[in-house]
Amino acid sequence: MARRKKIYEGKAKILYEGPEPGTIVQYFKDDATAFNNKKKATLEGKGVLNNRISEFVMVNLGRMGVPTHFIRRLNMREQLCREVEIIPVEVICRNVAAGSICQRLGIEEGEPLPRSIVEFCYKNDALGDPLVAEEHVTAFSWATTQELDDIISLTLRINDFLSGMFAAVGIRLVDFKLEFGRLYEGDMVRTVLADEISPDSCRLWDIETNEKLDKDRFRRDLGNVTEAYAEVARRLGIMRETQRAANDESDL
Amino acid sequence: MARRKKIYEGKAKILYEGPEPGTIVQYFKDDATAFNNKKKATLEGKGVLNNRISEFVMVNLGRMGVPTHFIRRLNMREQLCREVEIIPVEVICRNVAAGSICQRLGIEEGEPLPRSIVEFCYKNDALGDPLVAEEHVTAFSWATTQELDDIISLTLRINDFLSGMFAAVGIRLVDFKLEFGRLYEGDMVRTVLADEISPDSCRLWDIETNEKLDKDRFRRDLGNVTEAYAEVARRLGIMRETQRAANDESDL
Ligand SMILES: Nc1ncnc2c1ncn2[C@@H]1O[C@H](COP(=O)(O)OP(=O)(O)O)[C@@H](O)[C@H]1O
Ligand SMILES: Nc1ncnc2c1ncn2[C@@H]1O[C@H](COP(=O)(O)OP(=O)(O)O)[C@@H](O)[C@H]1O
Ligand SMILES: [Mg+2]
Ligand SMILES: [Mg+2]
Repeated sequence: MARRKKIYEGKAKILYEGPEPGTIVQYFKDDATAFNNKKKATLEGKGVLNNRISEFVMVNLGRMGVPTHFIRRLNMREQLCREVEIIPVEVICRNVAAGSICQRLGIEEGEPLPRSIVEFCYKNDALGDPLVAEEHVTAFSWATTQELDDIISLTLRINDFLSGMFAAVGIRLVDFKLEFGRLYEGDMVRTVLADEISPDSCRLWDIETNEKLDKDRFRRDLGNVTEAYAEVARRLGIMRETQRAANDESDL
Repeated sequence: MARRKKIYEGKAKILYEGPEPGTIVQYFKDDATAFNNKKKATLEGKGVLNNRISEFVMVNLGRMGVPTHFIRRLNMREQLCREVEIIPVEVICRNVAAGSICQRLGIEEGEPLPRSIVEFCYKNDALGDPLVAEEHVTAFSWATTQELDDIISLTLRINDFLSGMFAAVGIRLVDFKLEFGRLYEGDMVRTVLADEISPDSCRLWDIETNEKLDKDRFRRDLGNVTEAYAEVARRLGIMRETQRAANDESDL
């Protein structure tokens, strides 16, 4: 069988050309990186879990009318998506202070924020994804004013949806990172959610114990990283299927 | 002990004066009514479940910055709330066609709607809560244009949140009914969510089987009404506590 063409290899995923024009395949690796690539490891099974969790979230967001790149999951590590032109801005939405905002603004980790805050970082590994203002996003034409408006309102909707989803299974959604892209359809362009939503891109704390169920376990060497991701999948009711399929992964 | 004053007895709840000015107590009865009071029954334990489910939803909405009347649960059947001036409009939000919209517009039950639809009914039992347009709401001063704008945007946020919450536990949020009120604080007025959110006021279908887990079981004589409400509570992780306390209800 002819090997399909690799388009891009990132830190956590590989993109392949999809079977039809305008589609791509996201392959979820087990690689974990943090601190702008300075810390690296392989976490067996992480890719399988993120593929499945991201599928669950994207499918449910799609049902709510949030446009996403997701078409369908192909197998344990791959999902078929619409190819988009990624808007080079990482969109962060925060409900509780954690991570970079604590140092930046002198806030204690775990402090609830006065309201949900949407931040933008310029997606550029060489520069370490620096924080920017809306001013920069539009001035440098990374996104138009209209796109930025769409991004903000979609992000707030996604925050409400995800907060409810995780609250139902005893998890506090502390913050998360999104990427959006331009989907070209004929002479139309739409702003759609792209990339992934998973414990790699969210901070998730157990509501009772504040136990971290996300990538901070890796960043801070807390151990049991994959186990925490599996716990998130299990609580969302997607574990049994994932487990069964993971055992069959030799089929891949 | 002096018996506190009853303010109002409705179809499913009794309102008492609260311990402090500006507060009320909602007492959740086991009474069920449908078809504008033509069908009646007592469903043992329903009030306990609705009290607990509505608490869970309101607390989590409050955390998301949605203003609600809820202060705290007092016991198995009662919750302390801020007294509001109820806006006499029932706000219905629909994701999937069911109930009155099917007959009204000739849509099959279970058809997904082109987008989430927000409807208003004039809250008036004598008239059978008739459907109205925004035009009527503002023309008859049931709500101001500003209040209506707030109500619509809060309702859409609540829809996103609840859809996520229920999706996480394998339930499709088909539709739901909300009531809003005016909260007077000094010379300020705010629009806040009031009344209850429970299987009495939502249509909830199992995502796999489409089994109804809401008041339609009572409306259509499907049986196991309280069992279905208990299943909703159990999936949201609030059953064990409710069960324990229900056994102690003699303490009330
Ligand atoms: N639908 C899509 N079309 C094109 N590119 C996408 C799509 N979804 C995500 N991407 C991009 O694919 C890459 C995914 O791989 P990842 O390992 O996350 O990369 P990175 O190291 O850049 O974060 C990201 O650069 C992301 O912006
Ligand atoms: N915070 C509040 N302050 C004042 N009235 C409220 C509040 N929350 C709900 N209500 C009203 O209390 C009543 C609750 O009892 P219910 O049995 O649901 O009545 P109904 O038969 O009118 O639906 C409703 O009329 C509702 O509008
Ligand atoms: Mg990435
Ligand atoms: Mg009522």
